[in-house]
Amino acid sequence: MSSSSPAQAPSPAIVFDTLQAYQRSVALRGAIDLDLFTAIAEGNTSLSKIAARIKASEKGTRVLCDFLTMLGLLSKPSSGEYGLTPDSAAFLVRHSPAYMGTMANFLMNPQVAGLLEDITAVIRHGGALPSDHGALEPEHPMWVEFARSMAPMMQMPAEAIAKLFAGDTKPIKVLDISAGHGLFGIAFAKRNPSAAVVGVDWGNVLEVAKENAAKAGVSDRYSTIPGSAFEVDFGSGYDIVLIPNFLHHFDAATNEKLLRKVHAALAPDGIAITPEFIPNEDRISPERDAMFSMQMLGTPAGDAYTFSELEKMFRNAGFTRNELRELAPFPQRLVVSQK
Amino acid sequence: MSSSSPAQAPSPAIVFDTLQAYQRSVALRGAIDLDLFTAIAEGNTSLSKIAARIKASEKGTRVLCDFLTMLGLLSKPSSGEYGLTPDSAAFLVRHSPAYMGTMANFLMNPQVAGLLEDITAVIRHGGALPSDHGALEPEHPMWVEFARSMAPMMQMPAEAIAKLFAGDTKPIKVLDISAGHGLFGIAFAKRNPSAAVVGVDWGNVLEVAKENAAKAGVSDRYSTIPGSAFEVDFGSGYDIVLIPNFLHHFDAATNEKLLRKVHAALAPDGIAITPEFIPNEDRISPERDAMFSMQMLGTPAGDAYTFSELEKMFRNAGFTRNELRELAPFPQRLVVSQK
Repeated sequence: MSSSSPAQAPSPAIVFDTLQAYQRSVALRGAIDLDLFTAIAEGNTSLSKIAARIKASEKGTRVLCDFLTMLGLLSKPSSGEYGLTPDSAAFLVRHSPAYMGTMANFLMNPQVAGLLEDITAVIRHGGALPSDHGALEPEHPMWVEFARSMAPMMQMPAEAIAKLFAGDTKPIKVLDISAGHGLFGIAFAKRNPSAAVVGVDWGNVLEVAKENAAKAGVSDRYSTIPGSAFEVDFGSGYDIVLIPNFLHHFDAATNEKLLRKVHAALAPDGIAITPEFIPNEDRISPERDAMFSMQMLGTPAGDAYTFSELEKMFRNAGFTRNELRELAPFPQRLVVSQK
Repeated sequence: MSSSSPAQAPSPAIVFDTLQAYQRSVALRGAIDLDLFTAIAEGNTSLSKIAARIKASEKGTRVLCDFLTMLGLLSKPSSGEYGLTPDSAAFLVRHSPAYMGTMANFLMNPQVAGLLEDITAVIRHGGALPSDHGALEPEHPMWVEFARSMAPMMQMPAEAIAKLFAGDTKPIKVLDISAGHGLFGIAFAKRNPSAAVVGVDWGNVLEVAKENAAKAGVSDRYSTIPGSAFEVDFGSGYDIVLIPNFLHHFDAATNEKLLRKVHAALAPDGIAITPEFIPNEDRISPERDAMFSMQMLGTPAGDAYTFSELEKMFRNAGFTRNELRELAPFPQRLVVSQK
């Protein structure tokens, strides 16, 4: 937000605005619940038509639409008329192939958002309090919600990674650790008809991955290993092991234990591919990656690790060479590690 | 947040970032609770010293400090060292005369933040649900919290308004409606030694105003009328009636009823001064004023009214002339209304 005060004069605006920032999340969750963006996409652009379509009061609809306009999620070409922005048209209209409204189910789930509820105690302790460790328990339903809700955000980056590493027709064996929705592994199977993919995750979560493999028409080359990635037998001879958004939940020693298992499961010229939120060494850029460390403070010992921290874990686990790859325009980056 | 995608390509970043925006409010509340800014002001600028001073883990302190740096509330001159910004030095260090950390107590109070908890139902209904109307009940303790917590944000604007309208020594009678902390009226009494000020609010809230009048040394010219502004007898012959941040809680008809009482209480050449969040007619600027309508959606029938809406209420109540005045650099504006 801009301030009209001279550059030298401190302004309390930033304090007020930051303490009110939660309203942005709340408003978007409400708009997604009411399917507001779909209503506008259907041609309801006047306040009265939008309100009628979403079955809401005109006043509430007006306040919500104006708020979303200020957030950059709607346009307001004239008084009382609203339009979609390119972003909301692509990601928040229910019949869009890239619909991401489900993300609100996970990111604003009380189990996720609530991790930071007792923020003062969490900062003191340096992580989730012992009473909050539930999400890392076996078969926790939060990860089924994750697999169903966050898949849309991962679809495009998964395809971009497969394009880089899946090859064309050469037979490859791919292991997808903490597969979740399964999209990272499935993208390899879709791109390379000779790829065989194995997903590892809790049994209840793998049901979602199997559904997605069936939808993608690759069920015959998609198998699963249910259980803890720290305990199950991965098998061996994999050309590629995917470790998407998993290491950020654990401390370095725990990750090294997992990475030694990954190293052993890889073929001699195999690689591990790790899509992650990876802050720069200054830990304050890129903002989205660096800010993810606050979310991870809600876990017992996780973090958004820098490349040098990840590199050390991979090296300690026996990997010879690690490379940081950008995945722009997607908001994550990759570590590519040679066995 | 910046995006590295080309301008044409839609990016899901805005959806992800908006759904995570609540973490900004949570993080600042945590930093205020831990008195982090005061610790840094005392000369603790290294991570280890800050953590020791606020009695928190180094990891939690590091994540919090980096997050606040990205929000613009800290600087990070070098790795592991942090500094205050001009804004955090002025408003978030406990011994600063303009300390505003108490604002978190009100703005993130469950009674305030919780107004929007069931956002979907609130938008449908166009305001707070009947079960949530408690804050407008007589003597609700939320307004004592308001009076204690929000006073620091109002100190400077109150003094700026008094400078404009209190005169020097000419005897004036001032009525301060919904006085709360009392600072608006007290500023008139401080500036003009011949000003007599009457504060109206619930009895429990007026105790805070009386404390502040005593601290300002103006108790002998500060009197109170406890009760509902809609019901008590204001008296008459006032030169100035202040109506700070009150009209936004009610619908237009209710406000007109109040404003007729105000009109009757004013001397023939008296004026009403109304500091408010006043959006422009487009309702999407200035952002802070316009966004306030979302907060007010949590009330039964309140709103952030435009100048034309406020002008109509004042005109219907008998006022002859209304003027919109900027109060920059403070984040509110004034309506000045001639009897």
